[in-house]
Amino acid sequence: MQENDTRTPTLAGIKEAAARIHEVVPPTPLIPFDTEHGRIWLKCENLQPIGAFKLRGGYHRLSAMTPAERETGVVAFSSGNHAQGVAWAAKRLGIPALIVMPEDAPKAKLDGTRGLGAEIVTYDRMDGSREKLAADLAAERGAIVVPSFDDPWVVEGQGTATLEAVEQMTELAGGPPDSAIICCGGGGLATGAALVLPDAKITVVEPEGWDDMARSLANGAIEPVGANPPDTRCDALQTMEVAPITFDILSAHGATGIAVTEEEVAHAVRTAFSKLQLVVEPGGAVALAAVLAGKAKPEGRTMVTLSGGNVDAAVFAAIIQG
Amino acid sequence: MQENDTRTPTLAGIKEAAARIHEVVPPTPLIPFDTEHGRIWLKCENLQPIGAFKLRGGYHRLSAMTPAERETGVVAFSSGNHAQGVAWAAKRLGIPALIVMPEDAPKAKLDGTRGLGAEIVTYDRMDGSREKLAADLAAERGAIVVPSFDDPWVVEGQGTATLEAVEQMTELAGGPPDSAIICCGGGGLATGAALVLPDAKITVVEPEGWDDMARSLANGAIEPVGANPPDTRCDALQTMEVAPITFDILSAHGATGIAVTEEEVAHAVRTAFSKLQLVVEPGGAVALAAVLAGKAKPEGRTMVTLSGGNVDAAVFAAIIQG
Repeated sequence: MQENDTRTPTLAGIKEAAARIHEVVPPTPLIPFDTEHGRIWLKCENLQPIGAFKLRGGYHRLSAMTPAERETGVVAFSSGNHAQGVAWAAKRLGIPALIVMPEDAPKAKLDGTRGLGAEIVTYDRMDGSREKLAADLAAERGAIVVPSFDDPWVVEGQGTATLEAVEQMTELAGGPPDSAIICCGGGGLATGAALVLPDAKITVVEPEGWDDMARSLANGAIEPVGANPPDTRCDALQTMEVAPITFDILSAHGATGIAVTEEEVAHAVRTAFSKLQLVVEPGGAVALAAVLAGKAKPEGRTMVTLSGGNVDAAVFAAIIQG
Repeated sequence: MQENDTRTPTLAGIKEAAARIHEVVPPTPLIPFDTEHGRIWLKCENLQPIGAFKLRGGYHRLSAMTPAERETGVVAFSSGNHAQGVAWAAKRLGIPALIVMPEDAPKAKLDGTRGLGAEIVTYDRMDGSREKLAADLAAERGAIVVPSFDDPWVVEGQGTATLEAVEQMTELAGGPPDSAIICCGGGGLATGAALVLPDAKITVVEPEGWDDMARSLANGAIEPVGANPPDTRCDALQTMEVAPITFDILSAHGATGIAVTEEEVAHAVRTAFSKLQLVVEPGGAVALAAVLAGKAKPEGRTMVTLSGGNVDAAVFAAIIQG
């Protein structure tokens, strides 16, 4: 493990990450969309090559590895999008990658990760041992664990999405975002946004029953997801507990959180299908869901993330016909 | 009718159209996609506010109308995307619009057109009288008919998609397109591309049995679709006969055409869903289908159009699960 992996992520780090990432992937589109509650600007991270923003953090983290570290490789645990992000970066940089994924991850995500050349080990999502499993596998190989949000490089990498949006919105709408409504699992994407937009209003959105970041921000201390959380189609956002690296920055920023129902999420997925011609997975649609439901109001130039679009055909078909 | 509506569309006209259109809609994304046959750049016209490129031609045509012409309004006939393009432009410019649509048009397109405030009259697609019906309705009202491709303003408007792609590809890939593979109904989009890219290789793509432009280009004279053409999911491309305004320019350019099967189209729609997170309607996916099937090879910097994404949920669900 590198000695400085507990450092705090910074705006300077996000700018460095952006310089690296822009060498390998173009900016994702920022698309205006007029809702009955006002105009929003959708940051379409579902249109990344891996269908989610996660390659940003993965690429920034892996790019920072030394030649010796690259040789022994990386281990990541993920429900699927971070898996693909790390696998994509590892393939690009020629680094071996082993990914620990829940056995019930969407087939689209398992196939995508495998297709990028990563080795996959599956685990039971509810037994809670994925961190230990990943740590054990990493120790065996002398590999570096790349967490999905509890890591300064990863947070900085995710922040590049908002840095891009600042430039795009300035060109298209005359200035940077005044507010940002952001899908939240562990909070990496939102924390990056908070660093890029110190003066903007930040709202994080989670599925009902999985709104631990919202409760943590409201109560001023990290609170985990409760026992027996409800089923959700938002597999990308099933984080059992956030970490100081994201919570502290979001809390200091004054960010707040809200929760959306499964039906509100489904409505957002349907709207993205029929009005935007975009495939968005349930977990990637929670921020849009909050706007459409009138729970998060657009204020000034409002950025809303569509964070991912890796969804199995049967699930998507059921939702759009529902 | 205006006296100069039989003029030939020009590159200067396309540039004028672009200046107008960029005041009201941002450029659509140009997204790189690596296929087994090489890299292509997808011009995502399915991400327009109406889900198709057609607002370009509609807006350019309607913007050119005099105050007196605007008062009596416009009539258009269309399977749905041109309908929405004209309705969108009419709403934006405060012009009354009556649209003649086939009674079996996708619900998504009928609803979209109605939602934009246009008056709708339906007709039977196979009885071939839509031009006469539109002309009669226009004569009754003293309105101007806006054809879907047989009009210089409309062709110039559609050409702005390629003009945008030139700028985007130059920024992202170091130069303008060397080749362009383009979805073709009446040929407006392709003709615009031919005017913008005089030196590029242009390939138009149509559904099997509806490949009248391909046959016309091969034989050097306009040939209509044959009797009893096959069923196709590509409702956007069911043009019975092209016109000199598109054929002459494409023919002089040296463009060629190819046909794709319904299964090749379905595969392209599925690929756009699972790999690109994009909703593309069958007719909007024919160019991608030609590339994926190995029928149209990428050559140099290759632009491929995704021309529309207005598809009913049941049809899309059936295709992606097929």
